[in-house]
Amino acid sequence: MQQINHDATGEDKSRLALFPMTGEYAQGQDLLSSWNEGSTKESIINFVRGVTTPGDPQFVKPEDRIAVFDNDGTLWSEMPAYFQLAFVFDRLKALAPQHPEWKDKPLYAAVLQGDMKTVAAGGLRGLLELATITHAGMTTDEFSKIVEEWIATAVHPKFNRPYTDLIYQPMLELLAYLRAHGFKTFIVSGGGIEFMRVWADKVYGIPPEQVIGSSIVTKFEMIAGVPVLTRLPELNFMDDNVGKPVAINLHVGRRPIAAFGNSDGDLQMLQWTAAGTGLRFGLLVRHTDSVREYAYDVSPLGTLDKALTEAEANGWTVVDMKQDWKCIYPFETSK
Amino acid sequence: MQQINHDATGEDKSRLALFPMTGEYAQGQDLLSSWNEGSTKESIINFVRGVTTPGDPQFVKPEDRIAVFDNDGTLWSEMPAYFQLAFVFDRLKALAPQHPEWKDKPLYAAVLQGDMKTVAAGGLRGLLELATITHAGMTTDEFSKIVEEWIATAVHPKFNRPYTDLIYQPMLELLAYLRAHGFKTFIVSGGGIEFMRVWADKVYGIPPEQVIGSSIVTKFEMIAGVPVLTRLPELNFMDDNVGKPVAINLHVGRRPIAAFGNSDGDLQMLQWTAAGTGLRFGLLVRHTDSVREYAYDVSPLGTLDKALTEAEANGWTVVDMKQDWKCIYPFETSK
Repeated sequence: MQQINHDATGEDKSRLALFPMTGEYAQGQDLLSSWNEGSTKESIINFVRGVTTPGDPQFVKPEDRIAVFDNDGTLWSEMPAYFQLAFVFDRLKALAPQHPEWKDKPLYAAVLQGDMKTVAAGGLRGLLELATITHAGMTTDEFSKIVEEWIATAVHPKFNRPYTDLIYQPMLELLAYLRAHGFKTFIVSGGGIEFMRVWADKVYGIPPEQVIGSSIVTKFEMIAGVPVLTRLPELNFMDDNVGKPVAINLHVGRRPIAAFGNSDGDLQMLQWTAAGTGLRFGLLVRHTDSVREYAYDVSPLGTLDKALTEAEANGWTVVDMKQDWKCIYPFETSK
Repeated sequence: MQQINHDATGEDKSRLALFPMTGEYAQGQDLLSSWNEGSTKESIINFVRGVTTPGDPQFVKPEDRIAVFDNDGTLWSEMPAYFQLAFVFDRLKALAPQHPEWKDKPLYAAVLQGDMKTVAAGGLRGLLELATITHAGMTTDEFSKIVEEWIATAVHPKFNRPYTDLIYQPMLELLAYLRAHGFKTFIVSGGGIEFMRVWADKVYGIPPEQVIGSSIVTKFEMIAGVPVLTRLPELNFMDDNVGKPVAINLHVGRRPIAAFGNSDGDLQMLQWTAAGTGLRFGLLVRHTDSVREYAYDVSPLGTLDKALTEAEANGWTVVDMKQDWKCIYPFETSK
């Protein structure tokens, strides 16, 4: 581990020396100020220095500096369950009056009655069905409006704040830090592509064309002379596990040089990224903070197990949220 | 039609006045120098001026300046048949020794014997089968290498030049002109997404993540401990006709404000683009030059008919190649 030398101002002079040419360091500004000093932060800085220093054998041209980020549990919280599930349940309740037949369907009735035990027993397949049903039956423009309204008004059950407040401040800094060093940042999430695109630009600074996710089928049609894309209740692509490298290849067309995740659903994306030639970076966010966030390796729908083993074997960075992050959310005052 | 005033230097002073702030016009440089003066060129310039002039009611924020381009017949030639078909046939011949059974399949045998009449009789369905078979059975990295080698060596039967020489100089200028005005340019083609991505950046300045096309299924797998994406002989998505707006929505996530095509396969993309609010631009390249390129509205696999009718009804620009373009290809000396 590299020695960090702090002077009287608390400024890290050794790191300043690493970036003699870049404006933000010339001004002594630490773009990763919510990251505690230590090997985790250093691993990020060392990687970025390696691929961005002209003349360095590990230098990577700016256009090839592709970084991919999982969303749930990596850029924002995912407890007590994926936030998009709250949207699914709220949508189902809103639509229920038009679907009296749902009362006779156990899974649907369970959601309407708030019986989360039965919902959980339906597993991923059941949730996928609910997601597909509630996300279809309107045009893409109409769906965007529905998401926009929901994300502006829905609140997290524990924090009693909008879900978009529950994004990780250190990861926001990391996104900005990478972009300041010529990286193009992409989201590659199991979440819905059109669900995320509505707010990802505002919240993460990631434009729609750099948001990749799961999708349902859309169909072009002319309705009363107006061309629309209608959303159908049929899964188009599941962007998880083995799906992530496939989606990266389809949407980005280049192999990333850095990948960021938090569960086994991100393993193949990390493997695919790490298998390229040259310097590569893999990082897992580990949820270890039961006070400020949550502490778990197993969430209702995800597990961090194999990816953790591979991280150790391959030298990927594992973030210990409790140890490595000065703060979790942007709204915390203790920055 | 706007009056164009040329001074003794041949410089268009009226247009200079339109762009008092932009460097290229301040220097009197015409970024569209291969376009003859007239209503076609003016329609492009007027549109770009409208959406890029701050304070203009039609101003569009840079991030929403999305322009989509068909490829075959719009950015490069498509005669005597889509260039990718030559790749398909060359691949089939190269693979034939490993597939003695192909001799007994009429369509495959026809390709091997150069019997294009039988191949044509197989229609789009037959060609799709051949494309799928010849594009599968290797990893994505291996496929890219195969395309790279082919595109570097194959030559066009009439012009006896690499296919990538047969790109349209005026369209290259248009791409650069739009980018100089803050546009993000995308290809949205019926051609293979991974076929085009190999050379689109070098030839058009369009990076892989902005190339959208048809695709076959890819599958993530570990082979001898190495993660690969294997290409399977199964169609994933056909990016033509009604598929184009669907693909734009999936890959870009924003509605374009300008769309460029040359056949009825581009109609829905133009309709989808034109249906948005605010100033929109649609353009069709019409092949009218039997001497320098080709003259046709009906190609072996495409037709310009309905789109032409809609262009008239909606005020989309129709390029008359013979009249509007000073030169066709970059290699012509008469620029």
